[in-house]
Amino acid sequence: MHASSPQGFLVHHGRAGIKETSPDFTVIASEVPAVASAVFTRSRFAGPSVLLSREAVADRSARGVVVLSGNANVATGAEGRRDAEEIRRRVAEAIGADENDVLIASTGLIGHRYPMPLLRAHVASLRWPFPGADFDAAATAIMTTDTHPKIRRARCGDARLVGIAKGVGMMEPDMATLLTFFCTDAAVGPVVLDDVFRRVMDRTFNALSIDTDTSTSDTAAVFASGLAGHVDLVEFERALGALALDLVKDIARDGEGATKLLEVRVTGARDVAQAKRVAKAVVNSPLVKTAVHGADPNWGRVAMAVGKCQDDLDIVPERVTISFGAQEVYPGTPGPKELERVAEHLKNAEVALQVDLGVRPYSTAEFTAYGCDLTEGYVRLNADYST
Amino acid sequence: MHASSPQGFLVHHGRAGIKETSPDFTVIASEVPAVASAVFTRSRFAGPSVLLSREAVADRSARGVVVLSGNANVATGAEGRRDAEEIRRRVAEAIGADENDVLIASTGLIGHRYPMPLLRAHVASLRWPFPGADFDAAATAIMTTDTHPKIRRARCGDARLVGIAKGVGMMEPDMATLLTFFCTDAAVGPVVLDDVFRRVMDRTFNALSIDTDTSTSDTAAVFASGLAGHVDLVEFERALGALALDLVKDIARDGEGATKLLEVRVTGARDVAQAKRVAKAVVNSPLVKTAVHGADPNWGRVAMAVGKCQDDLDIVPERVTISFGAQEVYPGTPGPKELERVAEHLKNAEVALQVDLGVRPYSTAEFTAYGCDLTEGYVRLNADYST
Repeated sequence: MHASSPQGFLVHHGRAGIKETSPDFTVIASEVPAVASAVFTRSRFAGPSVLLSREAVADRSARGVVVLSGNANVATGAEGRRDAEEIRRRVAEAIGADENDVLIASTGLIGHRYPMPLLRAHVASLRWPFPGADFDAAATAIMTTDTHPKIRRARCGDARLVGIAKGVGMMEPDMATLLTFFCTDAAVGPVVLDDVFRRVMDRTFNALSIDTDTSTSDTAAVFASGLAGHVDLVEFERALGALALDLVKDIARDGEGATKLLEVRVTGARDVAQAKRVAKAVVNSPLVKTAVHGADPNWGRVAMAVGKCQDDLDIVPERVTISFGAQEVYPGTPGPKELERVAEHLKNAEVALQVDLGVRPYSTAEFTAYGCDLTEGYVRLNADYST
Repeated sequence: MHASSPQGFLVHHGRAGIKETSPDFTVIASEVPAVASAVFTRSRFAGPSVLLSREAVADRSARGVVVLSGNANVATGAEGRRDAEEIRRRVAEAIGADENDVLIASTGLIGHRYPMPLLRAHVASLRWPFPGADFDAAATAIMTTDTHPKIRRARCGDARLVGIAKGVGMMEPDMATLLTFFCTDAAVGPVVLDDVFRRVMDRTFNALSIDTDTSTSDTAAVFASGLAGHVDLVEFERALGALALDLVKDIARDGEGATKLLEVRVTGARDVAQAKRVAKAVVNSPLVKTAVHGADPNWGRVAMAVGKCQDDLDIVPERVTISFGAQEVYPGTPGPKELERVAEHLKNAEVALQVDLGVRPYSTAEFTAYGCDLTEGYVRLNADYST
């Protein structure tokens, strides 16, 4: 077991045969009933995994999650629902849990049923308690088109936190669904954990956008075993937030075809919702993303993207300020020297855009959105990938 | 004058010196007061041209429009507003019109003032009445990054219609703003023309999306001189609609880097607004656009894009049907033969996706959105373009 893994969690990772050659079946389970919270895709085409997990976590208690990689089990009708229920029930039996205490997450091809005989045989081979808690192996086993596993660890007092994530499109339904799971041995009450997790997700994973597309299977969950005792809650939220943000940046850097991490910070907004709306309009603009890719100091595109928030009538060009890194470019027309500085900043692996809306003089409402550049590599990956 | 041009309109096209070598200054003017209607970008960064034109057309009467190509006059502050007012006033004087009866439209670089001495000299050289009505030349003079001029003509009884358009991104603020102008000699009342024009725009130009970005300068206007007398209004709306749709398809085909026209028809919706929302979600999805580009029969991406309409709780996967061309792919899993047929359809220059939402059994609410594929050429064009 990794020295800094949270107590009380065990991990199974193996090959059930969904994929040809790589691990595709993961179970993360708590030895004791854990406090849990989860957020899911809001897609109208959400698959049975999401529907079952949503029910399982409703009572804010769970034993763990089974993750199948290579098959999303989406658009598979009533049979797909029954398949998901069966796998979950069998895994629950294997770890001595109630089936309603186990979440299930799937990622991969859409419109194909699970290879049920293979999965049944694999689950039958599970021996509880699992012999270890190799979260690094779990981070690898849940990957699809990711180029490397994403795992981050943190401490908070005596407690430990670990988070793993996968996903490189936002969110490609066939291959690049976003899945992320956090485990901690901190003792945090169910209502507080739910509050903290939703706030953290809103500022991290919900602030991430690779290409505006949304998967049918996105799932983020946290499990707290409580074995390390109570922690300072402010410190805990800070630690979980930092850990989640690191994972988000790992994902953005590994975005399909991406060469640069793009951070768009919007300040001076009427409220956080407005700041988020503008930040997402900028981080998602294909013209901003291509300009960042080409290191083109085309600040007019940022103004254009801000202007897309048509119903925000309190945004007026006369009060908006736009900066690239430390260099302000609007209002006023930047000279050749300023444009040079902007072009220099755009050559970095991390590009920071700031937009102050100036809607209210002393507003503290701000939001930072995370994304990546749009490249020929993205088009190549997604045009040439064949079902 | 072109044999099929509407009576009562004269066109000036020339080189004022905004661009280095090509025509950049166009005036389309009616010899008599014309009934007029116009719709504009809703961008919060709309430039003074849009603001002035919005005021000019408010009384549904106008003499014409001056179009400056190569400089958008956006983000130029109070001076930019004064420049636009001056140009418009001088052009109005030159054609013997009230300044409030002249629209102004600009497209090109953002954040730079007009070259006012050059423009003043050019306007001073105008002689009214203009010697001709060469709409083909006007269609060329308003271009920026378009690869060819867009012009379409139609008849309606004794009346003639002509429409010109420019724009290849939707809508690139520096270069690819959408401008489109229609002239007709049909006699149509101001309230009716406004109604008809807004309905036509909603089903044509507002159904078009190249890359989800929205320019600060988009302008669409119609002028009716009335010299050909009254027309059947249903026939008139049909003619104007067909003409506008042809221009929209011309633009989509000429979209930045585009190789294919993409039509997404959504039927069986609760209402037209829902049909439009879903059609736009599909036509704008980068993963759908790249799949179309790569002729990849990846129907799961269409399901994913429909699923993005998260607040449409009456959309349920069990009632949705998805087809590529004549081939249905969902519900059920398409076999190799069906996928072959889909791949064949995707190789066409015009790709048609149909989504029936099945929200209501006898719904007639439908909407067709128009767009293009997403290609490495788009990224190349927009990453390498330098301000």
